[in-house]
Amino acid sequence: MPLNWQPKNNKYMKNDSPTAALIIIGNEILSGRTEDKNLNYIAKNLGELGIRFMEVRVVPDIFDMIIDTVNELRKKYTYIFTTGGIGPTHDDITTEGIARAFGRKIVTDAGAAKKLASHYKCDVSELNSARLKMAQFPEGYELIDNSISSAPGFRVENVFVMAGIPSIMQAMFTAAKPLLKVGNTIYSKELSAYVSESKIADFLTSLQNEYPDTDIGSYPFSKDGRYGTSLVIRGTDKNMIEEAFTKLEKNIKNFE
Amino acid sequence: MPLNWQPKNNKYMKNDSPTAALIIIGNEILSGRTEDKNLNYIAKNLGELGIRFMEVRVVPDIFDMIIDTVNELRKKYTYIFTTGGIGPTHDDITTEGIARAFGRKIVTDAGAAKKLASHYKCDVSELNSARLKMAQFPEGYELIDNSISSAPGFRVENVFVMAGIPSIMQAMFTAAKPLLKVGNTIYSKELSAYVSESKIADFLTSLQNEYPDTDIGSYPFSKDGRYGTSLVIRGTDKNMIEEAFTKLEKNIKNFE
Repeated sequence: MPLNWQPKNNKYMKNDSPTAALIIIGNEILSGRTEDKNLNYIAKNLGELGIRFMEVRVVPDIFDMIIDTVNELRKKYTYIFTTGGIGPTHDDITTEGIARAFGRKIVTDAGAAKKLASHYKCDVSELNSARLKMAQFPEGYELIDNSISSAPGFRVENVFVMAGIPSIMQAMFTAAKPLLKVGNTIYSKELSAYVSESKIADFLTSLQNEYPDTDIGSYPFSKDGRYGTSLVIRGTDKNMIEEAFTKLEKNIKNFE
Repeated sequence: MPLNWQPKNNKYMKNDSPTAALIIIGNEILSGRTEDKNLNYIAKNLGELGIRFMEVRVVPDIFDMIIDTVNELRKKYTYIFTTGGIGPTHDDITTEGIARAFGRKIVTDAGAAKKLASHYKCDVSELNSARLKMAQFPEGYELIDNSISSAPGFRVENVFVMAGIPSIMQAMFTAAKPLLKVGNTIYSKELSAYVSESKIADFLTSLQNEYPDTDIGSYPFSKDGRYGTSLVIRGTDKNMIEEAFTKLEKNIKNFE
């Protein structure tokens, strides 16, 4: 399957941009022990690449849930990213989960094993099973470089498997970027005003109807005890964004 | 459907504790504009209530995705929580999405409308459609009090619909707590040591096998340039947690 493969059965698609979903794997997120820091980074980076970020799943360290989620999403979207669960311990089950999802054997990468052995200052034959696990991947993998520590991520078809530690995940995402098909750049303009959302709502509805190919978002905020609204216009047609934004700027004064 | 209804078709269930999933609704999370702050709060609170937090979905402001997600998850888990999309603007489509998921009409709550009118210092008849929207709910709703601002959340069967703004979401979650069936308390003990994960991995595997009814998690960290591992043992049997933890404490010295 080529990397620019386009999903066919996604009824939510608005245009022909590549799409993506993220699967965050780990009990520690669902127990509240660890706060995820990867979603926002990936969201921003996918936006910059013009890849439509369609959904996120957070699942526990349970094989059935990992397998079902991977197999459901990889057919729906251009790219799937996963974070977490590729370390050496018993609760790191992502690699095995991906292998089972694709129905593939797990094989050892000689180069990755050598790198790990050198990191642990031993021979490859002396790597214990926990360490060797970090050099094992489902058949048909491509390694994703890890410039921070010695265990790489990997790609199988359209699924990109990355570490959960934010600095390492970011290094892997950067390494994976050249493998991604870039979509139309997504432009975004934002304006904040001390206007109540409910006052400007009707105007926003008409503006959204006038520019259906943009996403107009309205987000209330409070600052120094005053309430206001941040308005965001996003889309791939820069001129249309500018035009809608100019209208918004001109009209917002009527509501202040 | 009573609130202590127990899902039947969930193959991932380990015990008879109530279960929950969270649906985070909003383009702003997927565009990276806004960083979610609710997942972690809800995770910690569900843990304290003994409710097993099984998964999270983040979906955009697209009806089909909201409807499909709500209808899939509400049959799987005891409780579904949603955050976001219940404000007055065109992009706040959660209430309508929930109504469509359940196949119900939207009706106006007289009390909520009165409260909003008083907030906006007008008569109910003078509320514009955007403001009135915040007093409208799918038939069969129960209001969830909002002690921060004037628009309430609501419950329909096992689905709890809350605001996206963290302070308001927290107020609503607190108001919803008495409606939730409490499970067995989840106990957790954590220990951190300057031990490499890959060194202690085999011991952890054997400890996990010895105590299969606990969840043993291993999380690497780096502090002042030194690498270490945090180990967490979680479960509902306090004595078993204590026993496993004592073994862990005793053995970790061998790996330092």
